[in-house]
Amino acid sequence: MTEFIPPATRFFALPTPFAMKRGGALHGARLAYETWGELNAHADNAILILTGLSPSAHAAANADDPSDGWWQAMLGPGKPIDTNRWFVICANALGSCKGSTGPASRNPDSEEMYRLAFPELSIEDGASAAHALVTGLGIKHLACLIGNSMGGMAALAYIHRFPNHARNHINISGSAQALPFSIAIRSLQREAIRLDPNWNEGNYGEANYPENGMRMARKLGVITYRSAMEWHGRFGRVRLDSEAREDDPFGMEFQVESYLEGHARRFVRKFDPNCYLYLSRSMDWFDLGEYAAGNVLRALSALHIRRALVIGAETDILFPLEQQEQIAEGLVSGGSNAEFVALPSPQGHDAFLVDIARFGPVVADFLADL
Amino acid sequence: MTEFIPPATRFFALPTPFAMKRGGALHGARLAYETWGELNAHADNAILILTGLSPSAHAAANADDPSDGWWQAMLGPGKPIDTNRWFVICANALGSCKGSTGPASRNPDSEEMYRLAFPELSIEDGASAAHALVTGLGIKHLACLIGNSMGGMAALAYIHRFPNHARNHINISGSAQALPFSIAIRSLQREAIRLDPNWNEGNYGEANYPENGMRMARKLGVITYRSAMEWHGRFGRVRLDSEAREDDPFGMEFQVESYLEGHARRFVRKFDPNCYLYLSRSMDWFDLGEYAAGNVLRALSALHIRRALVIGAETDILFPLEQQEQIAEGLVSGGSNAEFVALPSPQGHDAFLVDIARFGPVVADFLADL
Repeated sequence: MTEFIPPATRFFALPTPFAMKRGGALHGARLAYETWGELNAHADNAILILTGLSPSAHAAANADDPSDGWWQAMLGPGKPIDTNRWFVICANALGSCKGSTGPASRNPDSEEMYRLAFPELSIEDGASAAHALVTGLGIKHLACLIGNSMGGMAALAYIHRFPNHARNHINISGSAQALPFSIAIRSLQREAIRLDPNWNEGNYGEANYPENGMRMARKLGVITYRSAMEWHGRFGRVRLDSEAREDDPFGMEFQVESYLEGHARRFVRKFDPNCYLYLSRSMDWFDLGEYAAGNVLRALSALHIRRALVIGAETDILFPLEQQEQIAEGLVSGGSNAEFVALPSPQGHDAFLVDIARFGPVVADFLADL
Repeated sequence: MTEFIPPATRFFALPTPFAMKRGGALHGARLAYETWGELNAHADNAILILTGLSPSAHAAANADDPSDGWWQAMLGPGKPIDTNRWFVICANALGSCKGSTGPASRNPDSEEMYRLAFPELSIEDGASAAHALVTGLGIKHLACLIGNSMGGMAALAYIHRFPNHARNHINISGSAQALPFSIAIRSLQREAIRLDPNWNEGNYGEANYPENGMRMARKLGVITYRSAMEWHGRFGRVRLDSEAREDDPFGMEFQVESYLEGHARRFVRKFDPNCYLYLSRSMDWFDLGEYAAGNVLRALSALHIRRALVIGAETDILFPLEQQEQIAEGLVSGGSNAEFVALPSPQGHDAFLVDIARFGPVVADFLADL
């Protein structure tokens, strides 16, 4: 699976054993990360970025890897997350296949890939791994913890588990608990993978990769990552050129179908299906409310953070705006200085990746004030 | 496929040959229907109901079949569509498998099932078949044409093709053209069916029915038929009893997953997969705008209807409210007396089937005024 790992990736050895929330432990596990900028003498200019389900640690170009990263426009010298000022760390999620230990990694007990022998993965495990990385780099306090999407969940778990460690927080298109619409979508994505005969209870290889299942999962993902409004303006009812159509009575005919197919083709064989299943399920399980007898607002109000910025896109159907509003409301009720910003981006859940014109200045202004 | 056909179903022989919009013709085709109430001496109290993708003609109990129909609470003596006053016809869609001729019917040319030899099906073909049924029953003018969802598309095609035939119109959760979000969803549903090895290019049988593909298609359908808001209130994060869970690390755990599975199990083997593919694709193709050089508002304004009621649910993501607003706006701009009603039903696209408390009075008031 080394082909998934970007060249600038560094590896941090997690404490051994690394206990997992739902039981079991990892031995000899590692977290993949990249950095930008310089840590100052007081080690008080560090920002940690926690990602969504699929990104690697390569958020932007750096000396070891000049290729564009997944948040290229947001991160760099003079950019909203200004690496002239900040020392920025981006971690690949625990359980992923892009350098961090996950189901596609070698199980030291068997010397074979973990596959489904990987212990049950929780969002909280990812938070603890990220905290181990940060402290291992000699950083006692994060100047700011940034989490996007699944990373927004992990950031809340991080703040819960390690009070007073992060001084400030930006939560983007995140949520404090998974709700049934998102659970239903993710459950269907997992079912598509599990139904692929090649999945074979997790025992696939390069020659029999569950490509159809992953393609369906990715297409359903992309449908929920964007918005009907964006697609109406972008694709309308435009059809493919007749030569681009398949010779198939039910084949692709509209541009929107070709767009989904292109996304799927760029994803399959670039992500490990078992890792996808584990990370997807960890989001369904996440509920910060479990730390306050089911009361998610009370759990949020118990978090200690100096200042927080909570941003969402009005068109997000996967992590709907009400969930970002709830995060801000909970933080405020606990005495934090939290600001909620709803952006009218048409790109839905993915807006933070593409609508830098809107997200960039909000993030830049917040960081400039710290 | 006779097991799909409700007992009260009657059959109307369509003209032979029955020419199809995109080419080809049906021979010896029929349309399944049921009726309620009595046609009066002037034959001017007839209402036709055109359905969504999957319902049969059995909209409500009648003398020949006392079982509840799919719109039981809406239709009957003293109900919003009052069968003491109106003679109501409900047609099973052309291309369906519940009595009307479709891909699961016998092809008179080969004496075998049509399967993919069925000609390409358009929404307009369904409209023409329904019009043939109505006139065949001795009705020159419909007092009101009612269309729901796909039937709302078919109703607009009907009014376009047969001007001045329907005097009044109720369009519920319909649209004048398919937009890319809905096309994407339906394309993915069709792909799930086509990926099932049992589909076998349409050549399945009872013993090798593409159950997995149909289950995925149905689950994705149900996700888009309802709304996140409804599910949040209805399921929240409630888990299944441990004994109801499968012994599978990625099996169902949340109530919402069990709800989807229940819907899927009630659907598979009750609907023919090839019929599903044909009807689904016909919706993607539908665009009333093609009758006005791509301008859907102008196409709507050219429709002749005396009074119209256009209803939508605010939470509908599959046929979003803007599409019902567009229908009303287009009809009004053409001089029709059209009213647009947006209902705050939480049940999304399916609301007209279940939120009778809101939809019933609106329909009843409109019909009472005719």
